[in-house]
Amino acid sequence: MLFATPLNQAFTDDEKSLISELTKVKLPLIAVFTFDDKKDNKIHTQKEAYFKSAGCKTAYFSSKENTASHIKTLYKLIEESAPEVTRELTPVEGLVRPGSTVLLVTPIDSAAPKGRLILPQVETLRDLLDRDCNAIVVKENTLQSALENLKNPPDLVITDSQAFAEVSKILPQEQPLTSFSILFARKKGDFEYFMQSLSALENFPDGGKVLIMEACAHHQKEDDIGTVKIPKLFKKKICAGGKAVTFEWSREIPANIKDFSLVIHCGACMITQKTMLERTSILKAKGIPVINYGLFLAWANGLLPRAIEPLKGIAK
Amino acid sequence: MLFATPLNQAFTDDEKSLISELTKVKLPLIAVFTFDDKKDNKIHTQKEAYFKSAGCKTAYFSSKENTASHIKTLYKLIEESAPEVTRELTPVEGLVRPGSTVLLVTPIDSAAPKGRLILPQVETLRDLLDRDCNAIVVKENTLQSALENLKNPPDLVITDSQAFAEVSKILPQEQPLTSFSILFARKKGDFEYFMQSLSALENFPDGGKVLIMEACAHHQKEDDIGTVKIPKLFKKKICAGGKAVTFEWSREIPANIKDFSLVIHCGACMITQKTMLERTSILKAKGIPVINYGLFLAWANGLLPRAIEPLKGIAK
Repeated sequence: MLFATPLNQAFTDDEKSLISELTKVKLPLIAVFTFDDKKDNKIHTQKEAYFKSAGCKTAYFSSKENTASHIKTLYKLIEESAPEVTRELTPVEGLVRPGSTVLLVTPIDSAAPKGRLILPQVETLRDLLDRDCNAIVVKENTLQSALENLKNPPDLVITDSQAFAEVSKILPQEQPLTSFSILFARKKGDFEYFMQSLSALENFPDGGKVLIMEACAHHQKEDDIGTVKIPKLFKKKICAGGKAVTFEWSREIPANIKDFSLVIHCGACMITQKTMLERTSILKAKGIPVINYGLFLAWANGLLPRAIEPLKGIAK
Repeated sequence: MLFATPLNQAFTDDEKSLISELTKVKLPLIAVFTFDDKKDNKIHTQKEAYFKSAGCKTAYFSSKENTASHIKTLYKLIEESAPEVTRELTPVEGLVRPGSTVLLVTPIDSAAPKGRLILPQVETLRDLLDRDCNAIVVKENTLQSALENLKNPPDLVITDSQAFAEVSKILPQEQPLTSFSILFARKKGDFEYFMQSLSALENFPDGGKVLIMEACAHHQKEDDIGTVKIPKLFKKKICAGGKAVTFEWSREIPANIKDFSLVIHCGACMITQKTMLERTSILKAKGIPVINYGLFLAWANGLLPRAIEPLKGIAK
């Protein structure tokens, strides 16, 4: 982040509170000092000391000097900060080799965009091509025939989590299997904390509350995953013995987050890894377990640990 | 199209010239008469007669009456006009059956969007899934291994036109083969006129001019198809005997269109069928042959008529 502030005026209250928020986020912050040619020495000393003590890099701009060279300096500072930003894994990074055959199961449900594929599917497919893999793309109803036409079984099957039940019935037990949503849990989230959080499903308290969090405002259809499918499956798997559960839905962490026993988050395909990690770290700090849709569906279909086996030894 | 005009004012000159343009396009036009409650009878009679003689449907609106019922009437008129609009084919319509195995060759060149696939590839893939087909997606460098892993050869191979040469070397002669660009010629354009226009390649005049038309402002890379690859291949195939050729590039039909011996148009994935058909009909009326990138590349690679065989009996 770049924080521009003039050297001829003291910090405003707004600036102070904004800086205080920004330094909490623990992202590289560069102070860009403007009006360097009109600087007040006291203000300069104060502002510089403040940012340097917070570990920030500093750049100086003035309208009297050559802007191009200032910008060059700034680019260099930004480049130097790049390694501090966590790199997001690509969907199949470390899971395939050149020449691997990977079968993708992509059911077309009513929420799929007309004439297109959803983002995690397209990103995964492109990543496979970039890695010199062969991709086979099928719906769940033609999976059997696609498998029968192969001389060698796929090195990996990646399914939409919603088709876990059908897909796992068709595949032999030894077939490596995971889901787009589990790949995105690794790519976007704090995978280790998700794994720890799975125990919250086994030990769900009677009367507990579940928060379903989504990243985007997708159009909800009648068989919607977050509002219909997951609550239904949750009750079937966890409440069969008489346990009570309440569901709430949110796109932000709500004020009453302490009331929840578990957060089930969507695949986060429309938000950055940074946003997802920030959300997870806030929830983790409050002791709230977090999993995502794919992990819940894998668990509910009896596919854990099977569906995370392909990620073993690679997931951080 | 809806053309709204008030019944208390005579046609303005702008209206007259606009209507004259619109009636040339031969699309269903509905006259929407406003201020029906304040209508001047002479103007009303005149306007109504004008639109009815042009075969237009008419609807009447007034602020004094129930707008909802007017809108309902208007919807009905629009619905009635729908069959007059040419329906755009989906990419593989009529070319596959449920259960068909279709292999897509999608080279990843420098113009491909980061982490995605280009639109014709995604649309074709989705269309295959919607039709209960199995899709195999590979780059040209793993095509051989993908074929070797199949018990039965694909029912159809669809390649990026830029990989025709490599792909046709690998595939057996009897393997049905076409390209995304040829599918899009059928989907977006006047396929029959494209076919007729192919003779312009065989009979290209010495000193002739070629217009390369593109629909979108894609970022041009060094191996750009429209500015580099096609002119190079054109010269190799057509000018080897000493013929001269000049190339020009445009995103619109230029004023000097009569000077050109041939138009080679992009796949038109970013414009509607309607726009592409309009462009082609203007060029056809002026006697300028038009083909698209895919047809040119198929011809230049010696793949015609092979690459249009899969479309036979279906293409209109």
